[in-house]
Amino acid sequence: MVEIVKVGIVGIGHGRFGNRNDATVQELAFEPFKQAIQDAKNLRREDIDALVVGSVPEYHMQRSLPGVVAEYVGMNPKSTWLTEAACASGSAAIRTAYMAVKSGMHDIVAVIGVQKMRELSTDEILALMGRVGDVQWESIFGTTFPGYYAFYASRHMHEFGTTMEQMAQIAVKNHHYGAMNPNSFFQKEVTVERILKSEEVAFPLKVFDCCANADGAACVIMTNEKLAKKLNDSPVWFEGMGSASAAMSLLRRPNLYEIPSAVEAGKQAYKLANVKPSDIQVAEVHDCFTIAEIMAYENLGFCDKGKGGKFIEDKQSYIGGKTPVNVDGGLKAKGHPVGATGVSMTVEIVKQLRGIAGKRQVPDAQIGLTHNVGGIGQYTFVNILRR
Amino acid sequence: MVEIVKVGIVGIGHGRFGNRNDATVQELAFEPFKQAIQDAKNLRREDIDALVVGSVPEYHMQRSLPGVVAEYVGMNPKSTWLTEAACASGSAAIRTAYMAVKSGMHDIVAVIGVQKMRELSTDEILALMGRVGDVQWESIFGTTFPGYYAFYASRHMHEFGTTMEQMAQIAVKNHHYGAMNPNSFFQKEVTVERILKSEEVAFPLKVFDCCANADGAACVIMTNEKLAKKLNDSPVWFEGMGSASAAMSLLRRPNLYEIPSAVEAGKQAYKLANVKPSDIQVAEVHDCFTIAEIMAYENLGFCDKGKGGKFIEDKQSYIGGKTPVNVDGGLKAKGHPVGATGVSMTVEIVKQLRGIAGKRQVPDAQIGLTHNVGGIGQYTFVNILRR
Repeated sequence: MVEIVKVGIVGIGHGRFGNRNDATVQELAFEPFKQAIQDAKNLRREDIDALVVGSVPEYHMQRSLPGVVAEYVGMNPKSTWLTEAACASGSAAIRTAYMAVKSGMHDIVAVIGVQKMRELSTDEILALMGRVGDVQWESIFGTTFPGYYAFYASRHMHEFGTTMEQMAQIAVKNHHYGAMNPNSFFQKEVTVERILKSEEVAFPLKVFDCCANADGAACVIMTNEKLAKKLNDSPVWFEGMGSASAAMSLLRRPNLYEIPSAVEAGKQAYKLANVKPSDIQVAEVHDCFTIAEIMAYENLGFCDKGKGGKFIEDKQSYIGGKTPVNVDGGLKAKGHPVGATGVSMTVEIVKQLRGIAGKRQVPDAQIGLTHNVGGIGQYTFVNILRR
Repeated sequence: MVEIVKVGIVGIGHGRFGNRNDATVQELAFEPFKQAIQDAKNLRREDIDALVVGSVPEYHMQRSLPGVVAEYVGMNPKSTWLTEAACASGSAAIRTAYMAVKSGMHDIVAVIGVQKMRELSTDEILALMGRVGDVQWESIFGTTFPGYYAFYASRHMHEFGTTMEQMAQIAVKNHHYGAMNPNSFFQKEVTVERILKSEEVAFPLKVFDCCANADGAACVIMTNEKLAKKLNDSPVWFEGMGSASAAMSLLRRPNLYEIPSAVEAGKQAYKLANVKPSDIQVAEVHDCFTIAEIMAYENLGFCDKGKGGKFIEDKQSYIGGKTPVNVDGGLKAKGHPVGATGVSMTVEIVKQLRGIAGKRQVPDAQIGLTHNVGGIGQYTFVNILRR
């Protein structure tokens, strides 16, 4: 066995997120898969060893999703299975593919993050999503996803004086960049005033503080150091991989103003990549709600604890600021097809590091980070990539 | 990075399969996890790096299963996620853990296969399971799981003259051994006469040709060569790992008397382990229906194509025969808690190779095999283990 030190990305693809009644789940999966193969140099589908599908299966009528996807995209008889870690399912798939390549078990692995959610009614989605929290002790009493993040927001406001205006500024930034991203669900700017006047979902969160359920898919093709240089002139490398868990039940968390799995996964990734938070030039973080992005700034060390509100107020997460964050629109503007999100984040970082992000390019970005939170923080995956 | 050549199992645990209304899904998971830690030598829970949960999530009221399991068994803040490949979800978890250890990303990984199915009604389970087949082209017309395997059985009978008596003999064998397994759902012998007189589910399958939905969990703890010898006096090693897929839709299969993913996964595993089918001294195969075990004999090369019926008729898969198969009772007698099954098979092979299988011990077994089929054959995982 040859020792494989580095694992890189040689192909990327990204479908349009949003209402995709035009496509079945397998058709959604095919779009970015085809793009990713074409994005790589001289890669044939037959060269791909394995397919890892990141998805939350229960939102689909079709079960056994990797089976139908592998058949539809033409991957039989290659190895395939699905990974699930709630909203971080796509990052669990990337971590699996990383281990598959690094172990030498597979040479070239395709990761497809895919989700179709818009067929279900909001009530059905709310009920299913509430059960992503602890069923025995929490969701049985009626907790929902916006409710969980409303707890975080209230506590963050109480502890640190974070304001609803600051949360709204997250949405303003992300819709600003989302308007430049043709794959975004929403491609319009919004203002703080409009957000603050929008309907309340769960105090203090307004409708514009919440991301939208969406249909969508994204794909990355990963390989080892030896093959990467043949398959792409500018492969992007995984330098640090972090993965951690935290108590599912909020009752068992030490506090409600940070996500401990994010802090831990970040530490692991920084250590492996041997970089500091200030070295990150572009980041994709999990802004399922605006408060989540504020906590991410702090949990990842982009700013001090409690200073996340100030960080956005000072526009430090805009291009030109200290650490540009979610300059593709984030979950907020792109929409959040849960299984696809972690892969979508990774695709954007690859574009940024290759310098092909167009109007939303962070100048000369060489080190990027993805931060993908599952559920209410029971999982976080943090990866650091470098060109 | 140290090159890791071998990955071994140092701890095993197996809960009782069956109606487990006494336990939540996380409680089911804890039972074998605790046993597996105690089975290893001087292993502390804190030494375990990561937890991979094999399960089909949609059967549970609780979503985000690894989150609640990791919390309940005390694995926070360690890395965790779920793998799904229908009825082969447990083997997908084992393959993931294998890659995690072999890549050097994790030193010690716990795999818990867990499933709670008996809360759902038979109608609900049938509907959900039908959708494990192709929804767009098949299940929409009313296909169910017994129906799918009835296709296989009919075709096998037509092509090769396989008989209902031979299928019944599979059930007789597996219930014979299941009666010696305290973790089995069913612990009673049955006769060919009783089986043939039992109610028809889908011609030619009688109720005794079908395995039962069950609750249950099993656990293995896997580590690298260096640590394995410290953590167990007789570690069992993975020598060959096979994983393949096949068309989800039966319409797109070349025939209905074999499972192409099983043939392919078997070839991979034999090649990596550098052994022949005749070298396998004990095997656990996926007998979700009796015809499935007959096809497994052929697909794995234990006998020639079309000779599976004769193989059981001649008792070649009994202890003392050519290749003892499912001497723990198989899915047929143990029950089939889908996510747990692949891990349960692995636990039995470890017991056999350690020589601790008691009344059902295959004398001096040194090489064993697991064969875990997902869905209607869209996935198969075949692993070869050696003591």
